[in-house]
Amino acid sequence: MDKICFSFTYTLAGEGRARFGTLTTPHGVIETPAFIFCATKASIKGVAPNMMKDEETQIILSNTYHLFLQPGADRVERAGGLHKFMGWSGPMLTDSGGFQIFSLGHGSVSSEIKGKRTTHRPKTLLKITEEGAKFRSYIDGQIHLLTPEKSIETQVKLGADLIVSFDECTPFNVDKAYTARSMRMSHRWGQRSIAEFNRLNGPETQRLYGIIQGGVYEDLREESTDFVNTHAFFGHAIGGSLGASKEQMYDVVSYTASKLDPERPIHLLGIGGVKDVFRGIEQGIDTFDCVHPTRLARHGGALVRPPHAKSKGRDHINLNNGIYRDDVTPIEADCPCYTCTHFTKSYLHHLLKAQELLAHTLITLHNVRFMNRLMAAIRSALKSGVGLKAIYNDWVNE
Amino acid sequence: MDKICFSFTYTLAGEGRARFGTLTTPHGVIETPAFIFCATKASIKGVAPNMMKDEETQIILSNTYHLFLQPGADRVERAGGLHKFMGWSGPMLTDSGGFQIFSLGHGSVSSEIKGKRTTHRPKTLLKITEEGAKFRSYIDGQIHLLTPEKSIETQVKLGADLIVSFDECTPFNVDKAYTARSMRMSHRWGQRSIAEFNRLNGPETQRLYGIIQGGVYEDLREESTDFVNTHAFFGHAIGGSLGASKEQMYDVVSYTASKLDPERPIHLLGIGGVKDVFRGIEQGIDTFDCVHPTRLARHGGALVRPPHAKSKGRDHINLNNGIYRDDVTPIEADCPCYTCTHFTKSYLHHLLKAQELLAHTLITLHNVRFMNRLMAAIRSALKSGVGLKAIYNDWVNE
Repeated sequence: MDKICFSFTYTLAGEGRARFGTLTTPHGVIETPAFIFCATKASIKGVAPNMMKDEETQIILSNTYHLFLQPGADRVERAGGLHKFMGWSGPMLTDSGGFQIFSLGHGSVSSEIKGKRTTHRPKTLLKITEEGAKFRSYIDGQIHLLTPEKSIETQVKLGADLIVSFDECTPFNVDKAYTARSMRMSHRWGQRSIAEFNRLNGPETQRLYGIIQGGVYEDLREESTDFVNTHAFFGHAIGGSLGASKEQMYDVVSYTASKLDPERPIHLLGIGGVKDVFRGIEQGIDTFDCVHPTRLARHGGALVRPPHAKSKGRDHINLNNGIYRDDVTPIEADCPCYTCTHFTKSYLHHLLKAQELLAHTLITLHNVRFMNRLMAAIRSALKSGVGLKAIYNDWVNE
Repeated sequence: MDKICFSFTYTLAGEGRARFGTLTTPHGVIETPAFIFCATKASIKGVAPNMMKDEETQIILSNTYHLFLQPGADRVERAGGLHKFMGWSGPMLTDSGGFQIFSLGHGSVSSEIKGKRTTHRPKTLLKITEEGAKFRSYIDGQIHLLTPEKSIETQVKLGADLIVSFDECTPFNVDKAYTARSMRMSHRWGQRSIAEFNRLNGPETQRLYGIIQGGVYEDLREESTDFVNTHAFFGHAIGGSLGASKEQMYDVVSYTASKLDPERPIHLLGIGGVKDVFRGIEQGIDTFDCVHPTRLARHGGALVRPPHAKSKGRDHINLNNGIYRDDVTPIEADCPCYTCTHFTKSYLHHLLKAQELLAHTLITLHNVRFMNRLMAAIRSALKSGVGLKAIYNDWVNE
């Protein structure tokens, strides 16, 4: 069905639905399971593309919402597309813009869909209709309408390898009736996304993912998986509210993933904790994205494995802590990242205290490598037959 | 007189006092004339050491004042010294701390000594006595006394290859009597610096520069050059007020440099405009340092040669300017820096508008390479006999 520049193949690892595979794009092959790092505004904050490559990054994503507002898709297209614009020659994904419109619009859906309380941001979402979502630019206050057609047009201009169907990201705190109505509208938006994608792009250089909504309701998730399975999407992306607790999230992901056509790559949107990655992979997830590793770094948090973490349940150490003032060891002694091979926790602590930009860069590099090493370890465990359980305690601190 | 791990050799280029040479340190050889980049708080802001190396940087400096206050010299010493602490394996210089005490203390001496008006910062300098300078930490308000002995002890602990004698950086807006008194105290501080350096360090891994003060007064500058020439400094550093105008600065530098023992390397403190570099080298200056290239970058200014600059007298373009929104050419088409070979002005403009940290990193890399290319072009012109005048208009926009 697809030209050879795109393909997805996988092998079940003999451990539930866990699988390893390859996702081939015109900009390179992604070994799955893989982690996708967030270059929200066409930049991994504080890290140049060559450094991302050096830390063995396979794929990054940018956010359509942000780039739509600034610098604008036409400008990126005139510059030769997003790969060229931002100097990233590897595989790339863009999201549809839906998540940010609703997240920024409602205050903070990103916390809401994870069931957390949140401080409210100014509401920029003005109106949702069958046509699309009307919102106010956070940059200049101008009013924009993002429709499925506009989202796809924008993503085609940006030119990422993998693009995503436009949806309403249903918040957590709505009832089942709202969730169902919203999901069905997202399905209609999905059909319009496919139609616009086929009209504009043809299947040469990009592939479209469908989004599964349905909140925490099994019957709605099933309706939504039926929708994506029976439409011409290249891959699946599990979106929407996954519940109020980690356990509910694992249940929703498990149920949803079990109903998806396994021949297509499956992405889990916005989830990327170390434990979550293990649980997702058990359910057959192939790719993850999350701002956690890079955002955590900018606050001084360095991801570490259990022997390095100080307390149970923590996935990181906080380098702002005075206990690192004189610690002349690297974040992780056996980590091959640029930061761990050149700098001590004492130096990183100093950079944070001195408010030096380089702190963000160096800790981000470590966290990027950490996630890439995690995914490599998981792929290796799946391929060799050692299995996820055998390596789980090397990575998860509980 | 010196062990082989330190040496300075030069050849006159047949153009006034202009010369090229090599300054050998235990951490490598510096081809002179050379530019020294400011890693104020043990970090080039936003740029990792490997990227500085990739842009052909020979030598960096850190500021004793900042590191004295945070993280403290003992901590750096325990971490194995500044080279190891900050991951820079090449030659390094530290200043004495004097400049910052007086600069932060008086408001902004850095502008005052260049004869510029300035907004006043909180005054932290409490008292100058024969013993030293008492000041309040800008970090925690604690009171410190920095003396020549303390400055040298701190610099020995930091462990840079080249270190500098403690002085009072005489401001511009004082009379000749103050300038003379201050200079003579700096000479006595210079003698105490030598004594402490010999006591603590011996001549194994570091070398001491003396500072020439004397403001804009020829007789005082002559007295100060006599002082440094007749004391056991490895090199000379021209400091203090250089006047109210560029022309006066060139006169003061010219007069001062003409009186210095030419067998020692000559550093010009805090000056690094492109035109200033040419004028300094004509007078026999071997090394320069200035925050200009890196600070300019953080404000969106990219150094360019005359064909790229928009108006006469400018050494840079401002990438914040909307005219670069759609400019898909690099900052300089023939520049081999990472930024120019991978990114367009359009992208850099976008990063600035989006307040992305990467903007600072990428523009800094260009400006660093620009200064390193400038110095390489000058060395080449001096060595080949082509001469400075032949290349002046390639670099200076007037």
